[in-house]
Amino acid sequence: MPSDDERIADGLPVESADTAADRVPADGTVLVSGFGSVGYPKEVPLALARTDRDLSLTVVSGGSVGREIDVELVESDAIARRFPYQARSPIRTAVNDGRIAFHDRNISTLGDEVQYGGLGPGNVAIVEAVAVGEDWLVPSTSIGHTPAFVESASELIVEVNAAQPREIGRFHDVYRPGRPPNREAIPLDAPGDRIGGQAVRFDPEKLVAVVETDRRDQPYEFREPTADDRGVADNLRGFLEAEVERSPLFEESVRLQFGVGSLGNALMAALGDADFGDRDLVYFGEVIQDGLLDLLDDGRLRSASATSLALSEDGQDRLFDDVERYAEDAVLRPADVSNRPALVDRFGVVAVNSALEVDVYGHVNSTHVNGSRVVNGVGGSGDFNRHSPLAVTALPSTANGGNLTRVVPMVPHVDHTEHDVDAIVTEQGVADLRGKSPRERAREIVDHCAHPTYRERLREYLDDAVAGGGHVPHDLDSALSMHRER
Amino acid sequence: MPSDDERIADGLPVESADTAADRVPADGTVLVSGFGSVGYPKEVPLALARTDRDLSLTVVSGGSVGREIDVELVESDAIARRFPYQARSPIRTAVNDGRIAFHDRNISTLGDEVQYGGLGPGNVAIVEAVAVGEDWLVPSTSIGHTPAFVESASELIVEVNAAQPREIGRFHDVYRPGRPPNREAIPLDAPGDRIGGQAVRFDPEKLVAVVETDRRDQPYEFREPTADDRGVADNLRGFLEAEVERSPLFEESVRLQFGVGSLGNALMAALGDADFGDRDLVYFGEVIQDGLLDLLDDGRLRSASATSLALSEDGQDRLFDDVERYAEDAVLRPADVSNRPALVDRFGVVAVNSALEVDVYGHVNSTHVNGSRVVNGVGGSGDFNRHSPLAVTALPSTANGGNLTRVVPMVPHVDHTEHDVDAIVTEQGVADLRGKSPRERAREIVDHCAHPTYRERLREYLDDAVAGGGHVPHDLDSALSMHRER
Repeated sequence: MPSDDERIADGLPVESADTAADRVPADGTVLVSGFGSVGYPKEVPLALARTDRDLSLTVVSGGSVGREIDVELVESDAIARRFPYQARSPIRTAVNDGRIAFHDRNISTLGDEVQYGGLGPGNVAIVEAVAVGEDWLVPSTSIGHTPAFVESASELIVEVNAAQPREIGRFHDVYRPGRPPNREAIPLDAPGDRIGGQAVRFDPEKLVAVVETDRRDQPYEFREPTADDRGVADNLRGFLEAEVERSPLFEESVRLQFGVGSLGNALMAALGDADFGDRDLVYFGEVIQDGLLDLLDDGRLRSASATSLALSEDGQDRLFDDVERYAEDAVLRPADVSNRPALVDRFGVVAVNSALEVDVYGHVNSTHVNGSRVVNGVGGSGDFNRHSPLAVTALPSTANGGNLTRVVPMVPHVDHTEHDVDAIVTEQGVADLRGKSPRERAREIVDHCAHPTYRERLREYLDDAVAGGGHVPHDLDSALSMHRER
Repeated sequence: MPSDDERIADGLPVESADTAADRVPADGTVLVSGFGSVGYPKEVPLALARTDRDLSLTVVSGGSVGREIDVELVESDAIARRFPYQARSPIRTAVNDGRIAFHDRNISTLGDEVQYGGLGPGNVAIVEAVAVGEDWLVPSTSIGHTPAFVESASELIVEVNAAQPREIGRFHDVYRPGRPPNREAIPLDAPGDRIGGQAVRFDPEKLVAVVETDRRDQPYEFREPTADDRGVADNLRGFLEAEVERSPLFEESVRLQFGVGSLGNALMAALGDADFGDRDLVYFGEVIQDGLLDLLDDGRLRSASATSLALSEDGQDRLFDDVERYAEDAVLRPADVSNRPALVDRFGVVAVNSALEVDVYGHVNSTHVNGSRVVNGVGGSGDFNRHSPLAVTALPSTANGGNLTRVVPMVPHVDHTEHDVDAIVTEQGVADLRGKSPRERAREIVDHCAHPTYRERLREYLDDAVAGGGHVPHDLDSALSMHRER
């Protein structure tokens, strides 16, 4: 069992990053820890990036990782395939140019896909830890899919990072779902409860190398909220306040999830001003971003559950200074628990996720510019949207300084269908789509969410399309015109 | 408690269908039992259809219902709004013409939407039963969302149908999930287990009328399997046999779901020839169709779980003659249990659903012809696809006698995204999409699933699109050309 005063148990095979990197086959599958751009391995990827070997790796992570992988390894041309999410410019370019085969997956099911599915055998898991023993490791700033990866891989390399506080394990609650068909229901009774331990267990035969480092995460940098962000946050707050009053689901508490990113971060922070009466506020999502720390500090937030401490560097410093206190109310879980749809359903979590654009009928494009060029990936938005009692898509009504509308006749890529979207919020207003037919939804979205500059053109499209008939009236000659003009 | 020798307990308010129909407000919301076109109320809808009153009803069902509702009531112009699924021509036409506002929903979450969401208060539940007491009723040939509807409605009318065997209650297992955030995990440990009782409980204050009938269901009529159906079934069988050998998820048993309809029925029946070694075969889906009866008869099927006995009239006769024996291995559940994603996940159910068309990247259109005209609705396909370890879309490669390809460059309506589709099967072959990038998937789908007549044109589209770059390369000028030519 992990004890608090040692980082690496006696007798483990400590070696240099370069020696460890040589263990990775040139065409191997590498399963890396990391989520929300924190808690990923650093030294071995850098060693792989500088090796003379001609590498053609498949790299699978839990979520987004740092520069050492998605910049350095990409620029050294070492990655042939990459799953399930990325958020850095060099890999994005390589994926869109067709140089790296990318597979964009829902986060919650990736662990199962690696363990049982068609992704092929996991050759080497490389994971960051704050401590490691003979058959256990304590993950660092994220858990992600580390448990599933460690269970799947035939070999394990652990990077022990002295720059991450040893006590960070206090956040962790590592529970493993079993294997279908005998998988038990996850025995979590409340969003903030604990049902596991700090450590991820592994077969000691697998551990081939331990590498030491003190290199810090390269986390996200959030931009300051824009006027549009604040407008979206204001409208969202008003909508949620009314819904919480109305629905019997929120008599005792309000459970919320927010997507990763600057807008999500701004929305989280703005929730501090919401009036939910004397109800408990609970966060049940995939990342804890800076916006949540204030809510934890002032006691507004009863508990927070996630798989990653996706904080800015300032946010990390703040948290590292007081791990013990924050860990009382915040818990990190494996991504197949934090994002598990069954728990989103049971706890009735309101899901708030951003998007690139929405169409007039409520289909959402979260990932692909003009239908072709991927930005980051679907991430956990599908995990939370589908089984939320209230799935909200929140986004500004325009992009590019107002030159592009984010409300369009037809989205050229769909990540969330009309069946899974309950409300759309922009800085212009709110469209509550529940119980409405597509034609009714369209009027609601154009009137309340589109920017006034584009409303007339959208109405003209709708009038033409409705004249042609149909339940979801579309004119296929002009449905994509606004995109084709771009 | 229900006893086996009475249909209607003493002292209940038995009245005529016309009198009961007068209790329904002219603009009321009517929550009707029924799923898979069986187990729906018949007399009160017919009375509503012949009334002189000017009706503008919202009709919510569990799934599809019979002629008495989706033909007679529609033709009498009594329905203004209709959720969540329909499968009859007159209502389909009315929906596509914009005369009825339709809202196409995932089945599993509809109960929650009615109870807690934005569908408004349920004024009257009208449900068919084989027996009713002071505070309980035993549903007939389907359970659907009857429990949620009875809990939500302010008034309850029960139609007791003497044409349905009283013993049909032996199939039922009525369990109710609680309300979030204190909703417990469903305590079902195996697909064929029972955790509830035969009866749906209700507040006795709600029961305003009991109506007697002996009118039979008007169930589906399945067409004979076509050559294409048999080709799809053959390819599916080969694919599943190999997968069952390969995956550790199927060491003990194979759990399957098939979509509703003639193709699904043919696929179910064809499974009887599959070689799964000595593994148990288990059905965990939403409907029990005729194809399953043979498998139950010859002991090939260990157990079957569904929400509806969606049998043909012949199939009903066969089942009604031997309820006791069939009920040993088959169980009917509320639709929010039969279709619950958490159970699909825990039991590792292989999902096999049909579609109108798929695109070269694996997006699936299940519902809307040319993106506009709805056929039936998404039904339960989304409930099973998303959380299945192996979600298969099975469809012929062409429609209209070969004159239309069902593999297209871009689907103009998406019901299942690329993130949720693992394999596509046509009579041409199988495309296993797992672990593949969109460009790889496209070659796989065109080479293995498209009809040879259309492969060259699809390849030309892909070559042009790939030349423009992108992770999911599309040429928006020509992406919908094949549809625009129709």
